[in-house]
Amino acid sequence: MITRMDCEALDRSDGLAECRGRFTLPGGCIYLDGNSLGAMPSAAPPRSAEVVAKEWGDGLIRSWNEAAWWELPTRLGDKVARLIGADPGEVIVTDSTGINLHKALYAALSLVPERRVIVMESTNFPTDVYIAQGIVRQLGSEYKIRFAEDDELELAINDEVAVVCLTDVHYRSGRILDRDRITALAHSVGAMMVWDLCHSAGAMEVGINACEADFAVGCTYKYLNGGPGSPAFIFAAKRHHGKYAQPLTGWWGHAAPFDFTRDYVPANDIRQMLTGTQPIISMSVLEVGLDLIATQDLAMIRHKSQALTALFIDLVEQRCAGDGFDLQSPRDPVRRGSQVAFNHRQAYAVMQALISRGVIGDFRSPETLRFGFAPLYVSYTDVWDAVEQLVQVMGSKEWRDPVFARRSAVT
Amino acid sequence: MITRMDCEALDRSDGLAECRGRFTLPGGCIYLDGNSLGAMPSAAPPRSAEVVAKEWGDGLIRSWNEAAWWELPTRLGDKVARLIGADPGEVIVTDSTGINLHKALYAALSLVPERRVIVMESTNFPTDVYIAQGIVRQLGSEYKIRFAEDDELELAINDEVAVVCLTDVHYRSGRILDRDRITALAHSVGAMMVWDLCHSAGAMEVGINACEADFAVGCTYKYLNGGPGSPAFIFAAKRHHGKYAQPLTGWWGHAAPFDFTRDYVPANDIRQMLTGTQPIISMSVLEVGLDLIATQDLAMIRHKSQALTALFIDLVEQRCAGDGFDLQSPRDPVRRGSQVAFNHRQAYAVMQALISRGVIGDFRSPETLRFGFAPLYVSYTDVWDAVEQLVQVMGSKEWRDPVFARRSAVT
Repeated sequence: MITRMDCEALDRSDGLAECRGRFTLPGGCIYLDGNSLGAMPSAAPPRSAEVVAKEWGDGLIRSWNEAAWWELPTRLGDKVARLIGADPGEVIVTDSTGINLHKALYAALSLVPERRVIVMESTNFPTDVYIAQGIVRQLGSEYKIRFAEDDELELAINDEVAVVCLTDVHYRSGRILDRDRITALAHSVGAMMVWDLCHSAGAMEVGINACEADFAVGCTYKYLNGGPGSPAFIFAAKRHHGKYAQPLTGWWGHAAPFDFTRDYVPANDIRQMLTGTQPIISMSVLEVGLDLIATQDLAMIRHKSQALTALFIDLVEQRCAGDGFDLQSPRDPVRRGSQVAFNHRQAYAVMQALISRGVIGDFRSPETLRFGFAPLYVSYTDVWDAVEQLVQVMGSKEWRDPVFARRSAVT
Repeated sequence: MITRMDCEALDRSDGLAECRGRFTLPGGCIYLDGNSLGAMPSAAPPRSAEVVAKEWGDGLIRSWNEAAWWELPTRLGDKVARLIGADPGEVIVTDSTGINLHKALYAALSLVPERRVIVMESTNFPTDVYIAQGIVRQLGSEYKIRFAEDDELELAINDEVAVVCLTDVHYRSGRILDRDRITALAHSVGAMMVWDLCHSAGAMEVGINACEADFAVGCTYKYLNGGPGSPAFIFAAKRHHGKYAQPLTGWWGHAAPFDFTRDYVPANDIRQMLTGTQPIISMSVLEVGLDLIATQDLAMIRHKSQALTALFIDLVEQRCAGDGFDLQSPRDPVRRGSQVAFNHRQAYAVMQALISRGVIGDFRSPETLRFGFAPLYVSYTDVWDAVEQLVQVMGSKEWRDPVFARRSAVT
């Protein structure tokens, strides 16, 4: 049996332990929801104060040049590029994940105009499917989405397929798809590959160029700790620059935005993925999160992530055996992202009881408890303490308290 | 001749004078560029600190509900609605102006599917044209943009036209189009009307429902003082809700976003215009600007705006007569927005010399000096002092200093 002292020993030998001090976390709380919204770097409040009071308040319009606001999307893009294995100039930070996926899907389709099929998983985070459905509705009835799950996925990728669009780490289960294998398969039938990296960027080495992906998108407010709703990123492989169509043709994506010419001419670099003016305050605060993770080793992050999730699974299965928890995440750590999902018939009430005890995970309808383990600020002892609270919730049956009953679909 | 004492008297009787104290402006500076980036409300830094340290840092994921982050787009939208003469539930704050114009144009076109022509001004701010060109490229070669300027504009609006898309206040000259007349003309031939309110929202009463417009967009970082790149707004008249198509179909625009159903079903209210997760820090700071202007009277703002611009024109023409300034803005205050443009052969160098003296306006290629007069924080004495600096720049010929010569197209 694992003991708390074992966990304390793991923390003492953890090469990432010092990182926790670079975040400000509320007292009395074990935060296991960094896969939904990353914690706040301690450098975020002073950076926020600086961009508001100094750059906006004092600098005013001059800050577009003097504080290099104009360069934020490309500068931050290059910082994300290093984290996902892309080259400088292949990633830009802008807009939301959904809008970027719209651009990426449209761009990918424009490169294989003779094909009409998009392959996706129906169990993907819904917005990815919704965005694809919007494109199909726009482009016409000859386009269609071919849904395929698990074992059927590879069978679905044939020479009718224009684009394969998948999320590498599943938002519920944390299951990792084989990026290399699936991208190679897509290319072998002449299809484009678009990856959604929302749940992998910052939690592991992604190697987006190593797998030769065509386009990718992802968010920055999970493992990159960019702040609530911080702008998303989009990757376009350099070989496609200047060749694809991007439908949201605003002036920030123009080859010469300040020439103010009448007709749109796309930039022939990653700036083609831009549309309009970006939210500078959110963008500037995001940079703090990117700079924090840039100082760390992704292989070490991945190693700790696998160890934390394995520890959590082991402890729950040891200490809550017979309480009705059913593991939904892969048991093989190689196939598991930085999160663990358990189903339980009273998942909602159990999660509410846990939250009331300061252990913050999240609930996904109808009966999933989802726990994220952000290696930069979650310790092995946190995992022990979180499971201890779960043991107490189950032992006391306090989840039966009506105060924890489900009232709203918004969680 | 107008004297500085006259201006001081005007300031003493200015009902908006107390507003200036609610902004923090840098010392030694007369800011005449609020039409590009509004000044910082003094309440912005504390609000920014609160959303970062308290709502994100302490509240973490809980703040989506407890700090009502999820409601920001609709809550802020209702605040913008009051400023542009829309009803509650007709405006939402999200994304950038360019992306919102893409949605609005596409939505308008979807309501008149049998027509193929978009009427625009070629001298509009370029991004509006670029966005329309992107839509035309997407929808196919049967679609086209019909450019028409000035007197030709009304002639161009005939029964081939699907959508008339115009900016009410011209970004260079400040010329105001007759929203009532043009909207009625568009409707009389069965076309939809889309207005870009970037340079009018917050500077005058817009009356978007009074003119019966179909859709509108606008930015919030000019006269609404939302901060650099703060999210934009989009208006859809209630009569069109549930009937138009919006192409960027992300989960925030779904009828039941937390049901996580596989297929997209659009919300049948203004939330259909949403796509993905919004930049919460920028959005929260924007609310400060909206709350500030909400306490003021738009008719009084408009009155002062007309008086400030008239004063500036009179002073420049009196005191810089013979210096080569050529008014580009309408002389009739009814047809003039809150800005004044003068052409000058040395416009770039003159503006740089003015900026070095603390008078901040902007330059628009090839030879336009553009000055914005935000009535909430620009005084009549500011106008006098700014012109005094211009008189000195011209009298001393200091603009000839090579340090002020044009080096870059980015201004």
